[in-house]
Amino acid sequence: MINGENRITRPLRWGMVGGGRTGQVGYKHRTGALRDKTYDLVAGAFDINAERGKDFGVNLGVDSDRCYPDYQTMFAEESNLDDGIEVVSIATPNGTHYEITMAALNAGLHVICEKPLVFTTKEAVEIKQLAEEKGLIVGVTYGFSGNVMLLQMRAMIEQGKIGDIHLVDLQYTHGYAATVDGDKKNAAQKWRVDPKIAGPSFVLGDLSTHTYYMSQLIMPEMKIKKLLCDRQSFVGSRYPLEDNAYVLMHYENGAVGRMWTSAVDAGCMDGQRIRIVGSKASLEWWDSKPNELRYEVQGEPIQTLVRGTEYLDELTSEYERLGTLHQEGLSDAWANIYLRIAVAIDAKNRGDEATLDKLIYPDIDAGIAGVQWIENCVRSADNGSVWVEYETEESVHA
Amino acid sequence: MINGENRITRPLRWGMVGGGRTGQVGYKHRTGALRDKTYDLVAGAFDINAERGKDFGVNLGVDSDRCYPDYQTMFAEESNLDDGIEVVSIATPNGTHYEITMAALNAGLHVICEKPLVFTTKEAVEIKQLAEEKGLIVGVTYGFSGNVMLLQMRAMIEQGKIGDIHLVDLQYTHGYAATVDGDKKNAAQKWRVDPKIAGPSFVLGDLSTHTYYMSQLIMPEMKIKKLLCDRQSFVGSRYPLEDNAYVLMHYENGAVGRMWTSAVDAGCMDGQRIRIVGSKASLEWWDSKPNELRYEVQGEPIQTLVRGTEYLDELTSEYERLGTLHQEGLSDAWANIYLRIAVAIDAKNRGDEATLDKLIYPDIDAGIAGVQWIENCVRSADNGSVWVEYETEESVHA
Amino acid sequence: MINGENRITRPLRWGMVGGGRTGQVGYKHRTGALRDKTYDLVAGAFDINAERGKDFGVNLGVDSDRCYPDYQTMFAEESNLDDGIEVVSIATPNGTHYEITMAALNAGLHVICEKPLVFTTKEAVEIKQLAEEKGLIVGVTYGFSGNVMLLQMRAMIEQGKIGDIHLVDLQYTHGYAATVDGDKKNAAQKWRVDPKIAGPSFVLGDLSTHTYYMSQLIMPEMKIKKLLCDRQSFVGSRYPLEDNAYVLMHYENGAVGRMWTSAVDAGCMDGQRIRIVGSKASLEWWDSKPNELRYEVQGEPIQTLVRGTEYLDELTSEYERLGTLHQEGLSDAWANIYLRIAVAIDAKNRGDEATLDKLIYPDIDAGIAGVQWIENCVRSADNGSVWVEYETEESVHA
Amino acid sequence: MINGENRITRPLRWGMVGGGRTGQVGYKHRTGALRDKTYDLVAGAFDINAERGKDFGVNLGVDSDRCYPDYQTMFAEESNLDDGIEVVSIATPNGTHYEITMAALNAGLHVICEKPLVFTTKEAVEIKQLAEEKGLIVGVTYGFSGNVMLLQMRAMIEQGKIGDIHLVDLQYTHGYAATVDGDKKNAAQKWRVDPKIAGPSFVLGDLSTHTYYMSQLIMPEMKIKKLLCDRQSFVGSRYPLEDNAYVLMHYENGAVGRMWTSAVDAGCMDGQRIRIVGSKASLEWWDSKPNELRYEVQGEPIQTLVRGTEYLDELTSEYERLGTLHQEGLSDAWANIYLRIAVAIDAKNRGDEATLDKLIYPDIDAGIAGVQWIENCVRSADNGSVWVEYETEESVHA
Repeated sequence: MINGENRITRPLRWGMVGGGRTGQVGYKHRTGALRDKTYDLVAGAFDINAERGKDFGVNLGVDSDRCYPDYQTMFAEESNLDDGIEVVSIATPNGTHYEITMAALNAGLHVICEKPLVFTTKEAVEIKQLAEEKGLIVGVTYGFSGNVMLLQMRAMIEQGKIGDIHLVDLQYTHGYAATVDGDKKNAAQKWRVDPKIAGPSFVLGDLSTHTYYMSQLIMPEMKIKKLLCDRQSFVGSRYPLEDNAYVLMHYENGAVGRMWTSAVDAGCMDGQRIRIVGSKASLEWWDSKPNELRYEVQGEPIQTLVRGTEYLDELTSEYERLGTLHQEGLSDAWANIYLRIAVAIDAKNRGDEATLDKLIYPDIDAGIAGVQWIENCVRSADNGSVWVEYETEESVHA
Repeated sequence: MINGENRITRPLRWGMVGGGRTGQVGYKHRTGALRDKTYDLVAGAFDINAERGKDFGVNLGVDSDRCYPDYQTMFAEESNLDDGIEVVSIATPNGTHYEITMAALNAGLHVICEKPLVFTTKEAVEIKQLAEEKGLIVGVTYGFSGNVMLLQMRAMIEQGKIGDIHLVDLQYTHGYAATVDGDKKNAAQKWRVDPKIAGPSFVLGDLSTHTYYMSQLIMPEMKIKKLLCDRQSFVGSRYPLEDNAYVLMHYENGAVGRMWTSAVDAGCMDGQRIRIVGSKASLEWWDSKPNELRYEVQGEPIQTLVRGTEYLDELTSEYERLGTLHQEGLSDAWANIYLRIAVAIDAKNRGDEATLDKLIYPDIDAGIAGVQWIENCVRSADNGSVWVEYETEESVHA
Repeated sequence: MINGENRITRPLRWGMVGGGRTGQVGYKHRTGALRDKTYDLVAGAFDINAERGKDFGVNLGVDSDRCYPDYQTMFAEESNLDDGIEVVSIATPNGTHYEITMAALNAGLHVICEKPLVFTTKEAVEIKQLAEEKGLIVGVTYGFSGNVMLLQMRAMIEQGKIGDIHLVDLQYTHGYAATVDGDKKNAAQKWRVDPKIAGPSFVLGDLSTHTYYMSQLIMPEMKIKKLLCDRQSFVGSRYPLEDNAYVLMHYENGAVGRMWTSAVDAGCMDGQRIRIVGSKASLEWWDSKPNELRYEVQGEPIQTLVRGTEYLDELTSEYERLGTLHQEGLSDAWANIYLRIAVAIDAKNRGDEATLDKLIYPDIDAGIAGVQWIENCVRSADNGSVWVEYETEESVHA
Repeated sequence: MINGENRITRPLRWGMVGGGRTGQVGYKHRTGALRDKTYDLVAGAFDINAERGKDFGVNLGVDSDRCYPDYQTMFAEESNLDDGIEVVSIATPNGTHYEITMAALNAGLHVICEKPLVFTTKEAVEIKQLAEEKGLIVGVTYGFSGNVMLLQMRAMIEQGKIGDIHLVDLQYTHGYAATVDGDKKNAAQKWRVDPKIAGPSFVLGDLSTHTYYMSQLIMPEMKIKKLLCDRQSFVGSRYPLEDNAYVLMHYENGAVGRMWTSAVDAGCMDGQRIRIVGSKASLEWWDSKPNELRYEVQGEPIQTLVRGTEYLDELTSEYERLGTLHQEGLSDAWANIYLRIAVAIDAKNRGDEATLDKLIYPDIDAGIAGVQWIENCVRSADNGSVWVEYETEESVHA
């Protein structure tokens, strides 16, 4: 149960790169970070327009002097301060994540980065190595994954409540890019369909990495053995970036699965869904009904588990905030993610490896895994939508 | 609007092969056929156990003399009667459809057969040729397809209400064969997992042919260009028959699609679903909420269309039975299918080709298409789950 | 499990009064009656327009000679036939029920009458007395009440699955009379707002008697002690007939309850609902999701019970028709009601009181109870919407 | 659109009375207040146990010196500081609201108080008078009312989208007090059933005041003319406090309505609902699906409006935070309430009456109205559940 009491030694001095006035994502970061008094926002390079960024930062309550024109200046100046930032969030377009993250780590900062972390496994692994060298945490903001009912799924699966996992059905679709209009008018969509900024994928990276990470979160033992990805660009100008993709997966334990990700699923407003089918029961969660979990045992009445109740697992209850009859939403999920990353940073700072070992949060490995997911999908798709062995860091170097 | 008044010249003299006391499907046939006074059940070879079949037929109100030990006897004896049957329904396991259908056509009977029609396109085409020669109708009981909201989907798609079709998402899954138990205990399940009786597939034939036909019904212009099928036997003793399959489709117009069919989707009670995504809107129908149709226009409030209302298309209203606030279900859907087949038979008997041309019902071509769907899926799966060009009668002979 | 095999000695020779081409209700009667081979439709006075009625009857397959201009003629003529009708359904406007029912009973016919049975308890009791004298059955077509999940509610309540009953929440509302338009244009609505034909109420009689009967069906032990009814005529020309009413009830066991009935609940398409709250759990059923039953135990996951499953009570399974995954609807519910009434008639004919004693069906007492419900509501409303002791046959004569 | 930029001159110096570690409600206050940088929590008398309260406050980041043993000390000490608190939230049991609020106003503090504000209209009016004298704001935390879709309802109703209002259906029920257990074990429930602390009602005050306020928020023109309340104590030891109540309302415009409030609605997890029926359409909102609004126009497809979309009214969009596909919940609603009250306080401080005039927030009049709602309900119930004229400040003094 979270009630606002401190969870870590003291609030972390926190800065942001990006997340300025013209986008939506920065507000989610701040809402998440500031919820539990674990972060103080003390500096920022919020905007590529320095003037606008300063005005914005001041409006957020940041000292004018600590609203910087760019991240380079921020990292340099803050490192000269006794109370300079110690952790930075990166909420910029994908193409900048690598260089900013590397710079931040080199400046001795813990990093919280938007997904997808970078463009290639190679880059992601470099980040991991640098972070390890420096003794720093890298967290990745898979924001939806903070929903507590996902922990309930994890606990129930681990306890054998659905039997052996047979089928994994994942979906994250919407229709906001059903036409080309947004590519031209909407800044946030424009860069997402530009390979130079978005990287090798549109929806695979922008949407499905969320759902893929959640599947790992709830089924940590499940490893993909091979997959096949079929991707399309219904708006032709997006080619080679896909606005729709289907993926089929084979897992090492014999399970199979699917992912559907799309930005052309016209009219869809509830398209992020996870269904895990076991040998005797299934669990299903929809992001649009985040406080519920459907538990379907073959041959029994369908069960709907509700957030905040006493019958949930203690893993779930640990991050409970509002109680039943009180709906939690995405801002609570982001708060949970930022809280867990703060706990990780605090533990790292204290050299408390025991806490780190058992803490569940989207760490650098989750960031790497997201990049690998995209790479494997793209490799399959670009080879004619064929089956490919799933390559990971380990599998490649094995 | 259907109110029970006659739709055809006179009720058809109808017999059944199979559909006896020990199974569930016969009751659906009778419920459908007898609803609108278009068929009189006057004969039957209801059961492989002749004694039990006679007892059952008499209980249904059939003359004892016209309860036959087998279909051969029935066809022979009835052809000697002035008022012998003129149409027969075949509700037996798949492996017998071909021989009984051919025998019925040779005996001059119209045929209404369970799906899947036969095991191979070759057999299906033979049936079509014989039926044409004889001037007889062959209908296939895709029972769910009688739901009137599917006609509404067809009308709206044809009228451009969703724009160009981009994505086709089909599903028919349940969990009734999640374990091996039913294979041993349940007669109806037992033969479904025996290749000699079920044919080359389990769930692809048993379940997905329904949903595939409905997709054709609502999008008659859409042709599959190639597909990829990945099938599994989670209960090993079912091998090579699959209890789960994923299919990816590419259509000739550039659309793509998916089918998921499964009998191991543990706990699932609402797994037959159709979602058609167009360039500007989507339509979605769930078999478990048959009276509703979701119409999602990108950028507008979600619409739920309800059966029986005045705003529906006249194509839909033609088969309306109960009015709003009054739920229709599967028995109404079967009644619609049997009614349309009766209209087809009556038209055929009268040589009324105009009526036949515009009548929408699951005819011999729909039967052939179902068999081809299975064949293409199995061919892909058995070649390593690879993409295969979609073969049809025409494509092969072209 | 119902599969079409005979349940009674032989089909009953059945006639109809009303239910002709211009209304919707006749089709529901025929759909229900003809489903299980328990009735043969052999005569009718279907329409006040004799010509149209005959044309219609012939179209339904009735002998031209047995399509009568009025019920008087039908009863007289049929009584002269060896195979004359033995049971008649009355599907005419409310104001005619009394005289037709009395005439039918006097002609020695079993009666199946639309609800509400008559205008006054006095009339209803006369009918009961005459029926008893003559040894005849009177059934009342509360069509929705045939849904099998209601029997599941009854069984679970009886077994103590919800504890002691505390709260009863009943609703039957729609918006089809939200404006005055239908009063003028729509024949079926026109008479419903005319006190001479409809009786002392509009929605209380037309809608809430259904839901009230269902509440009795599932909680046979619950007796109303007093109630308060507040009724309105939002369309002024309907006064004194109400188009909306609220009722509060106190039951003898200390439970309390509510009924909301309305024809001005604009846009509502799913307004028939029953929720029974016990001391430890609740049961809820919505007519728009007839195959589901929600079972909510305080402190446990919400359960959704699904029709056709093996975990349901045998009382429920007895009237099971289609199996799971196959939606039942209103036509199945009507079939169940007609089937049970046929069983009652057959038992009555055979003098089988044991069968009658345990048979659950909407009998003459249910008809009387519906009339009393309306009378008590109207008495309260017309005295200033005050609390009134609930009067029944017994309470008044006590 | 809210993105965290400042809305007021500077953050308000904020203190709390109550809301300590042992309850749940304090966290909601802090989550709401601290979301938008409009309040700094600088002092508190969090707990009746002074030691525990200080420990808790320090854990929240409050200076140890400013964690006070009681509100009297806090008000006295803080008034001596240059940067003493200027606004205080009162999150204590009902019976203390009056004295603490009066003391706070007398100490020159703006007040944010839990509902129900006080026990009697007389007390509430005294508070209003003192606040006016002092030039201070009194806000009441009807937390659910911050949901933005309620503003959408208000806008649509004002724009005539549903026609004239005919029916108002309100509900707030749950089953957490279905048995007596919680009365003994659970501190938060214990005082709620003690008239000395809870006041003249249990669920009427604890639950229905929320829903009643929301009805005022969305229909500000609607005034109750008379009502009838029927209340029960299913757990007898709660008498005279009710654990269930039904209310019928007549509005001055001829509309009628209902409220159901209950803590014995066993198993209910989604019982806060509002349905407003107009002459041509209805609007319905469920607290358990807070991001959706159902708009049902008679004779048209049902519409579901979704939070965050461009088709919503600008009144709604003003408080939009997360965008579509991103679920808002109760923490966002509380943030909206606290934000609006901050804007009110800031405007009051600046003498900006224009802003105050058009600002929609739960002000002292909303607090008074809630108390009057309870008083009228109790007066009716305690006089035998009879109709009573609805008395307000104005009506009584008129």
